[in-house]
Amino acid sequence: MDFVQELRGLIGEESVSTNPTVLEHHSHDESYHTPHLPDVVVFPKNTEEVSKVLHFANEHRIPIVPYGLGTSLEGHVIPYQGGISIDFQLMNQILEVRPQDFLVKVQPGVTRGQLNKELKKYGLFFTVDPGADATLGGMAATNASGTTSVRYGIMRDQVRDLEVVLADGRVIHTGSMTAKSSSGYHTTGLFVGSEGTLGAFTELTLKVYGIPEVILAARAVFPTVEEAVSTVVDILSAGIGVARIELVDARSIQQVNLYSQTNYPEKPTLFIEFHGNEQGLNYEVDFAKKLADENHCEQFIFETNSKERAQLWEARHNLAYAFIHRSPGKKMMVTDVVLPISELAGSIKDARKAMDDAGIDGAILGHVGDGNYHIILMIDLDNPEEMLKAESLNKHIVDYAITRGGSCTGEHGVGIGKAKYQRREHGDALDVMKAFKAAVDPNGIMNPGKIFI
Amino acid sequence: MDFVQELRGLIGEESVSTNPTVLEHHSHDESYHTPHLPDVVVFPKNTEEVSKVLHFANEHRIPIVPYGLGTSLEGHVIPYQGGISIDFQLMNQILEVRPQDFLVKVQPGVTRGQLNKELKKYGLFFTVDPGADATLGGMAATNASGTTSVRYGIMRDQVRDLEVVLADGRVIHTGSMTAKSSSGYHTTGLFVGSEGTLGAFTELTLKVYGIPEVILAARAVFPTVEEAVSTVVDILSAGIGVARIELVDARSIQQVNLYSQTNYPEKPTLFIEFHGNEQGLNYEVDFAKKLADENHCEQFIFETNSKERAQLWEARHNLAYAFIHRSPGKKMMVTDVVLPISELAGSIKDARKAMDDAGIDGAILGHVGDGNYHIILMIDLDNPEEMLKAESLNKHIVDYAITRGGSCTGEHGVGIGKAKYQRREHGDALDVMKAFKAAVDPNGIMNPGKIFI
Ligand SMILES: Cc1cc2nc3c(=O)[nH]c(=O)nc-3n(C[C@H](O)[C@H](O)[C@H](O)COP(=O)(O)OP(=O)(O)OC[C@H]3O[C@@H](n4cnc5c(N)ncnc54)[C@H](O)[C@@H]3O)c2cc1C
Ligand SMILES: Cc1cc2nc3c(=O)[nH]c(=O)nc-3n(C[C@H](O)[C@H](O)[C@H](O)COP(=O)(O)OP(=O)(O)OC[C@H]3O[C@@H](n4cnc5c(N)ncnc54)[C@H](O)[C@@H]3O)c2cc1C
Repeated sequence: MDFVQELRGLIGEESVSTNPTVLEHHSHDESYHTPHLPDVVVFPKNTEEVSKVLHFANEHRIPIVPYGLGTSLEGHVIPYQGGISIDFQLMNQILEVRPQDFLVKVQPGVTRGQLNKELKKYGLFFTVDPGADATLGGMAATNASGTTSVRYGIMRDQVRDLEVVLADGRVIHTGSMTAKSSSGYHTTGLFVGSEGTLGAFTELTLKVYGIPEVILAARAVFPTVEEAVSTVVDILSAGIGVARIELVDARSIQQVNLYSQTNYPEKPTLFIEFHGNEQGLNYEVDFAKKLADENHCEQFIFETNSKERAQLWEARHNLAYAFIHRSPGKKMMVTDVVLPISELAGSIKDARKAMDDAGIDGAILGHVGDGNYHIILMIDLDNPEEMLKAESLNKHIVDYAITRGGSCTGEHGVGIGKAKYQRREHGDALDVMKAFKAAVDPNGIMNPGKIFI
Repeated sequence: MDFVQELRGLIGEESVSTNPTVLEHHSHDESYHTPHLPDVVVFPKNTEEVSKVLHFANEHRIPIVPYGLGTSLEGHVIPYQGGISIDFQLMNQILEVRPQDFLVKVQPGVTRGQLNKELKKYGLFFTVDPGADATLGGMAATNASGTTSVRYGIMRDQVRDLEVVLADGRVIHTGSMTAKSSSGYHTTGLFVGSEGTLGAFTELTLKVYGIPEVILAARAVFPTVEEAVSTVVDILSAGIGVARIELVDARSIQQVNLYSQTNYPEKPTLFIEFHGNEQGLNYEVDFAKKLADENHCEQFIFETNSKERAQLWEARHNLAYAFIHRSPGKKMMVTDVVLPISELAGSIKDARKAMDDAGIDGAILGHVGDGNYHIILMIDLDNPEEMLKAESLNKHIVDYAITRGGSCTGEHGVGIGKAKYQRREHGDALDVMKAFKAAVDPNGIMNPGKIFI
């Protein structure tokens, strides 16, 4: 490990750690994937230091794993080949807010919570909201999305420019501050979602939105998941611009009630939110309610004040944690497929049947307005039969999706968990992706073993 | 030219032409760039034929130039190194409309007009509307945008999947039918805007929208361009979701009146459109009108019936042609910069001054809601002084934009006209782009000499 000594010389004693607790912390994510220790963790303070570390690692063929907060779910940050984990927690400055341009410049270690706290002062907000308070670097690297993506888009839609340090230490900018451009290749979109395999992001220019004039939230309770999903399809087909529309099944609501001290009816429910001006909203809400009624909605309950509304979305965001905390000793596996909206109802019905057939206890939930849903499974890693069942359910759901024009991951990304489905989903395009990687990382030091197997 | 004979054997006599008129037709675009003949033009009927042609060309190192309708403005389709121009006019089928998924699958030779005619039957429309009735293949390859991009996004936002034939004849799909995905690299976004330099598109899956319930169009007339632009900034800052907001200066309105038999007041004008439901719209229109008034709007005239509305947008779309038809013997140069919206007013003011100082007659217009504007110049190619002035104005405007976080082309693309600004705008990222190109087109047969110099 004498390269650690060289690293210390390069960026300073205090920025390099081999402390066992620190190594352990950087050996796992929040899911079921097997941990593995890095050799060393570095904490760079600026772009120059990141560049030095990568240049050095490239010369010596040392694996690099960029690390945000380690909340990703498919083994993304696990250093299976050892090497250097780069933790961006010291690069956590909000560099510039440009209210008139609806833009903000941040360092990669800024979290979405931290950013929104600052933006509120300007009447602005950042839309993408994964269930964990992740870093913006990590969110860009996984192309995260969340409850508001049905209206405002996914992470890739928000990134205008990335400062990227490439494997050899070169620093590039992938975009500009403009709303559009046809100048050169659009590399921003390629780097977003590259999971640390193409380079390390050291600065992000992101699109933000004005906090809407009026926000209305509601819960719509249905007899069955199918009727809830069918309402979603009807609402989208009618062109109603919902800002959020989340499916939370009965099993999930149970868990929400236990964890978040709510007493929501324990039935399939849509959590909905509308953004706009008062006049337009009343019309949209009435229309949405009518469509829900046609699908036998049992209750359509408005969360009238901002406290109740906050509670609703907190409950939704804490859902996965609710399962984790109630299942000591178990680990979480979250399926994450996405389909064309016309295939969503069939897919969820099929998934429910597959779970029932296999005798698996799991909760169905998700960003159904995007055609994206998850099944949360709490599994016992020491029970090989349970593991096998869960893996085979995951595969079943992925197969169903890919066969119908869908994708094996809507938002969590590939990491190692979905690497085995890449050839099936992408065919020869996978070789093109590999060629693009080789073009900027010829020695394959950037997060090796992820995405491609 | 005995490779022409081989091509005939490969895809059939009738699909290969060396007819002088056909060659001439494929030697130029609609702008001032110097024409150059291809050696041969081919008209493939399907993906397999495209694959055969590319594979053959790659083996023999013959340049390939994909050709849609040749309406691009920066020399994109001009075969400066000869070789094969591939014209997609026979691949013009609308393959599938999926109303529930708001998706359509088309061949690359389908034009936006043709597509919208079909979609109307379903109550749907395709949003991107460049001033020419271009092909969807060409629009994807230039990342075109238009009057509605401020609301619905640019071409890149609409493309869900591309079937691409690579230089060596391999056929890949870059995406899926889903609203989002985090599976593998997002190559769709990279191929969109690649101007035929990375591969040939043979099928496109595109996002479409429901025709809005209510559409309201208006003209807002201002004393100065500055006051018009300042209104645009105010409207966007207020979060009013205008569907279109176009600047048309006094010089342009003159031309519109001559060409389109309108009698609009010959003053700086915003052409605006609102989409939505009646209740929401009334509120937005009143708000927009108030903001216009604060900027000394002289007249805010609604185009109340659909005929007047159609006339308004036809006039806007025909603007460039209005100049061309009134300037026999001259050629068109259109500047096309884009800036962060906070820099737009300053940029337009500076451009006007630069034109006045140089004594150039040009019209300012553009998709100002995106921070994108054009100056249309009709130039005499045989007058070197005029050419020099126009080129130096173009450079001045580009420099101003890039210095302020903008881009040298908002929508027309690079071709050869903007190649000289690529290093300035992208720095080392240009080398990354070149490396990506080399990864899929190692022999450099795809549209050589474009984007990169
Ligand atoms: C309870 C829970 C709920 C979740 N809900 C959602 C959800 O709704 N939607 C969703 O999309 N995801 C969700 N996730 C997954 C996770 O939050 C996201 O993937 C998030 O984007 C990861 O961010 P992070 O900062 O933790 O990154 P990490 O997990 O640390 O890293 C993720 C990936 O990004 C790379 N990376 C990190 N920083 C950089 C950088 N600066 N430069 C280059 N690469 C970098 C890493 O190498 C790794 O490949 C959830 C996770 C949990 C635990
Ligand atoms: C009057 C006028 C107004 C215009 N207004 C606008 C506007 O508002 N917004 C805007 O964005 N543009 C505008 N343009 C420019 C032009 O219309 C667009 O660039 C359009 O996208 C070009 O489409 P096309 O089918 O004519 O493509 P072409 O000009 O034939 O080709 C353009 C590029 O695409 C490549 N290409 C074509 N087909 C394929 C394929 N199947 N696969 C791979 N590559 C391919 C070509 O090689 C070339 O590089 C205007 C042009 C004119 C003349």
